Amino acid sequence: MSDDKETASGLSRRGLLGTTATAAGLAGLAAGGSGAALLVPARAESRGHSAEVRPGDLDEYYGISSSGQCGEVRILGLPSGRELMRIPVFNRCSATGWGLTNESKKILTEGLLPETRKFLASRGGFYNNGDLHHPHVSFTDGSYDGRYIFVNDKANCRVARIRCDVMKTDKIIEIPNASDIHGLRPQRFPRTGYLFANSEHIIPIPNDGSVLDDPSKYWSVYTAIDGDTMKVAWQVLVDGNLDNTDADYQGKYAFSTCYNPNRGVTLAEMTDHEQAWAVIFNIKRIEEAVKSGDFKEMSGIPVVDGRKGSKYTRYVPVPNSPHGCNAAPDGVHVAFGGKLSPTVTLIDVRRLDDLFDDKIKPRDIVVAEPQIGLGPLHTAYDGRGNAFTTVFIDSQVVKWNIDKAIRAFNGEKVDPIVDKIDVQYQPGHNHSTNGESKDADGKWLMSLNKFSKDRFLPVGPLHPENDQLIDISGEKMVLAHDGPSFAEPHDCTILHRSKINPVQLWSRDDPMWDDIRQQAARDGVKLEEAANVIRDGGKVRVYMYSTAPNYSLEKFEVNEGDEVTVVVTNMDAVEDVTHGFTIVRYGIAMEISPLQTASVTFTADRPGVHWWYCQWFCHALHMEMSGRMIVHPKRA
Amino acid sequence: MSDDKETASGLSRRGLLGTTATAAGLAGLAAGGSGAALLVPARAESRGHSAEVRPGDLDEYYGISSSGQCGEVRILGLPSGRELMRIPVFNRCSATGWGLTNESKKILTEGLLPETRKFLASRGGFYNNGDLHHPHVSFTDGSYDGRYIFVNDKANCRVARIRCDVMKTDKIIEIPNASDIHGLRPQRFPRTGYLFANSEHIIPIPNDGSVLDDPSKYWSVYTAIDGDTMKVAWQVLVDGNLDNTDADYQGKYAFSTCYNPNRGVTLAEMTDHEQAWAVIFNIKRIEEAVKSGDFKEMSGIPVVDGRKGSKYTRYVPVPNSPHGCNAAPDGVHVAFGGKLSPTVTLIDVRRLDDLFDDKIKPRDIVVAEPQIGLGPLHTAYDGRGNAFTTVFIDSQVVKWNIDKAIRAFNGEKVDPIVDKIDVQYQPGHNHSTNGESKDADGKWLMSLNKFSKDRFLPVGPLHPENDQLIDISGEKMVLAHDGPSFAEPHDCTILHRSKINPVQLWSRDDPMWDDIRQQAARDGVKLEEAANVIRDGGKVRVYMYSTAPNYSLEKFEVNEGDEVTVVVTNMDAVEDVTHGFTIVRYGIAMEISPLQTASVTFTADRPGVHWWYCQWFCHALHMEMSGRMIVHPKRA
Repeated sequence: MSDDKETASGLSRRGLLGTTATAAGLAGLAAGGSGAALLVPARAESRGHSAEVRPGDLDEYYGISSSGQCGEVRILGLPSGRELMRIPVFNRCSATGWGLTNESKKILTEGLLPETRKFLASRGGFYNNGDLHHPHVSFTDGSYDGRYIFVNDKANCRVARIRCDVMKTDKIIEIPNASDIHGLRPQRFPRTGYLFANSEHIIPIPNDGSVLDDPSKYWSVYTAIDGDTMKVAWQVLVDGNLDNTDADYQGKYAFSTCYNPNRGVTLAEMTDHEQAWAVIFNIKRIEEAVKSGDFKEMSGIPVVDGRKGSKYTRYVPVPNSPHGCNAAPDGVHVAFGGKLSPTVTLIDVRRLDDLFDDKIKPRDIVVAEPQIGLGPLHTAYDGRGNAFTTVFIDSQVVKWNIDKAIRAFNGEKVDPIVDKIDVQYQPGHNHSTNGESKDADGKWLMSLNKFSKDRFLPVGPLHPENDQLIDISGEKMVLAHDGPSFAEPHDCTILHRSKINPVQLWSRDDPMWDDIRQQAARDGVKLEEAANVIRDGGKVRVYMYSTAPNYSLEKFEVNEGDEVTVVVTNMDAVEDVTHGFTIVRYGIAMEISPLQTASVTFTADRPGVHWWYCQWFCHALHMEMSGRMIVHPKRA
Repeated sequence: MSDDKETASGLSRRGLLGTTATAAGLAGLAAGGSGAALLVPARAESRGHSAEVRPGDLDEYYGISSSGQCGEVRILGLPSGRELMRIPVFNRCSATGWGLTNESKKILTEGLLPETRKFLASRGGFYNNGDLHHPHVSFTDGSYDGRYIFVNDKANCRVARIRCDVMKTDKIIEIPNASDIHGLRPQRFPRTGYLFANSEHIIPIPNDGSVLDDPSKYWSVYTAIDGDTMKVAWQVLVDGNLDNTDADYQGKYAFSTCYNPNRGVTLAEMTDHEQAWAVIFNIKRIEEAVKSGDFKEMSGIPVVDGRKGSKYTRYVPVPNSPHGCNAAPDGVHVAFGGKLSPTVTLIDVRRLDDLFDDKIKPRDIVVAEPQIGLGPLHTAYDGRGNAFTTVFIDSQVVKWNIDKAIRAFNGEKVDPIVDKIDVQYQPGHNHSTNGESKDADGKWLMSLNKFSKDRFLPVGPLHPENDQLIDISGEKMVLAHDGPSFAEPHDCTILHRSKINPVQLWSRDDPMWDDIRQQAARDGVKLEEAANVIRDGGKVRVYMYSTAPNYSLEKFEVNEGDEVTVVVTNMDAVEDVTHGFTIVRYGIAMEISPLQTASVTFTADRPGVHWWYCQWFCHALHMEMSGRMIVHPKRA
């Protein structure tokens, strides 16, 4: 067979993609822009510094990566780009039993709205999919504090929290009065505190069928969630589609890019205008409105009216249609990516008090608006006064200097562009090391590219994305690593390994299995020593513990039709010795990590002999670590 | 915060693990074995050749990796170790809609046994989990032919097939008369042909509750599946628990390791004996038995009696409890790993005719039994006469020479051990490049290690496994790369990139969406130009196509309670421009790759305005690629 894959690329791919990405509606923009990029050969530019981490060496940074429509969070090691862990959140996980164990089902269901519980009752009780866009780590005083990772689900309108100690999801809530949650950011100061969440598409509120095809009655909301309790604190009714959001370093303001200002419902309507907005939220004023009663309660949530003209918000005109929203680690500047405009709009947060006091006009907070390239989306920072903006259509990352951009905006003849580098291909988010905190250190930048085209061995019609790592420690950017990734890492917070300190063993008093702990107490069972089968009418509770290569029970017997709950406690207090519990031909499998308790409930409606076994390799006699569930058939 | 992770390892971890892995029942073995390995510091040995693939360069090999209890297949690039693609098989996939689309649900259900369909009827119709152990590529004349990947599910007793052209699963079948499928291998000669599948745990046949706690009536079966039709061809009733299997290069014999010869049901019973077996299956004799009627039909399958003493099988005594089963690319030798014995048993297939003709005794086919180390599991080959065996307890890969091992077995004073290398930690399967085919080229070896301990940044109580790449091109083995992997890559076939040629676009006449193609024809709809809403009583079929950034429909209207089928055809005939279709707060999401048609059916039982959007980034106006499903509420 031929082996011509390496040579089957070159010039054409890049040119083709440039054409494709601009085919509908953007051809004019593209034709007028940097045509040079379209002619760069696919791989000529790609030799650079190494991101290799040698066997046995540890990565220096954690990458907290979203998985987009996979619905999970991925923990990467950087600069190697290796995936260290998957954390199931909105997806189902065959390995860990996420979506099957009682503990995970509780988390997947208890935060849903009553109307959604009703909707899902005939669908297994919870959603099986999610679209996880923006993972962010909790802050204290503008620095990562390593407590939580927060994420959003655009598909089913949820926000979730992951505990950094055990790297497991512990809360999922559904946001009321919203269509879908897109942007998400934690409050930076004094701490997180609030999570700010953007509802993107406009809908009737309530969306119960009383209003249907009348877009004049569609709205979206900005939501503040209490990150400690994971309850919605308040919402703000806004105009347009909220896109991305960020918070300041002072704890006073939050920001959202906002497209579709005329609240259209078709592609033509959504793009048929010259300007859209950056919406600015005055947190203190909104909190006071909630206190003083200046809100409407909707679905039990105080909703403050922050539509255009409100004292709680300001709508700053920016070129149509803005996308990225990134606060700089200098604590002063926030950048909004122009997307359909080749510009980035930079504001100065020190002018916001005057804006809200009507001493200045909205555009007076803009301090720079440099021309970056075609399709500027997201901006990262190196902590040394430079910004790095992804330009989607040009397939580049553009490094520009904030100070020079401001001087140019003020009329000085200075070029803010410092460097440009081609990426492969069509970048979305980008992130620098510690770059979304005040500890930005300017070592590495990750560009999350939506297409990989010819960069990897072919794997069929569905391609991986390409997360590229760029060395930004010097004046020139240097490409260091191509990282294929599956559908589709949307966003990635990068922080130094010193910022997170996961544990190696579960604590026996962890709240994750509180329900089972209480049930065991009622049954007079000690989980750590359990080898009990408790019959309670048609319910049977089976308690066992595991120490490699044994379960404390070698078999248990139930009757066909019994509701069976199996509780397994892993008593191997040894790092990395995780056990599993799988019942064959019953669709039952779960993870039990060192000192964890996990449980699963099912109906024993298949009679016969059913082996269970440990599916997490644990010991030389792992294959023999098994037992039998004997299900007595119903008497005829 | 402290940053002491890099120094928190060293001597203790390896020592600790050595102790743990041998804690129950193996302490004696360990104490008598190679204690030196237990004292090797964790990272002192780990500098070696680089496996780095520079940005823009392509990997030389595909790794077809299982994901163990994750239930998916992963396509790796090697030597970089990068994950290029995930192929959902036995799991659910939030991104692609595997388990949600009509096309995937058909594949997940149609091959199930009637009794299982009944069992799963109240559970959504199919299993949500799997335990995918052994991925193997189809052969023609002992070489990989790049048609199919075959995999097994231990958890729910299934075998699946993946098409290499589109890298998607196209068939899943359940194996009757079996508890759980462990070992799996394709026939090598003249072609695949058969898939051979091992049932591991012994159960009553049929397992319908008529026999329960009477292990004297428990059995396991060896299964041959027709790889072209994916139907079971025949089964063989055997003694003991079948573990791993392999096929010869002549098309005459297949082999299985077999533990638990006394058919015990507890750990003590399973290990309380000195010997177990390598079972050898005579394919021609079994085919003749099926033809001549010397079988019992069970669940519609001809089951030949191959228990001890049968003319269809031979039970070759090997030390207790054998595990790995690997045919060498020389076409002559097959190795069985001793697991609880420090030896590997090597047989010569040229003696099998005589064995089956009773001219020699079972042990006469053994030509070598070298002492390898503690816990020998699986053996790979370099095509130059050397074998590489993983030793689980010693945490090493041991390189040994086949010819020298045979000479030593014949009494010559020669040491077959060529080299040993520590791996981190506790290896299971290992694989060499092209090493399971006659094209073995001896460049790289992957050791799939069950524990990673301190090799990566901490990520909580659940650790990744560690897939290590070793350079075997020289006399000494050199460690090149540590690859963390999630729960748990059990096995990995490695083949040169020239052996697989995936397509970039779907063919419009692909059989994957035959059902919808026929439905569209009945509805008078052309999928490629569709913008139709067909009402058929309480059923509504919505046909649209997509070209970035548009769907051919901007909205559709249905009534609460309607059964809605949405069919989307991606008409962007451009490599890598995959679209998605997600309906918010409806739990609906699916992949539509270039020129693919995908469909999903659901009940519209939530009234109101529900946006759908493209979740696969496709275009600068991707965010605006959306539409509305308007669900009219039931009249009160």
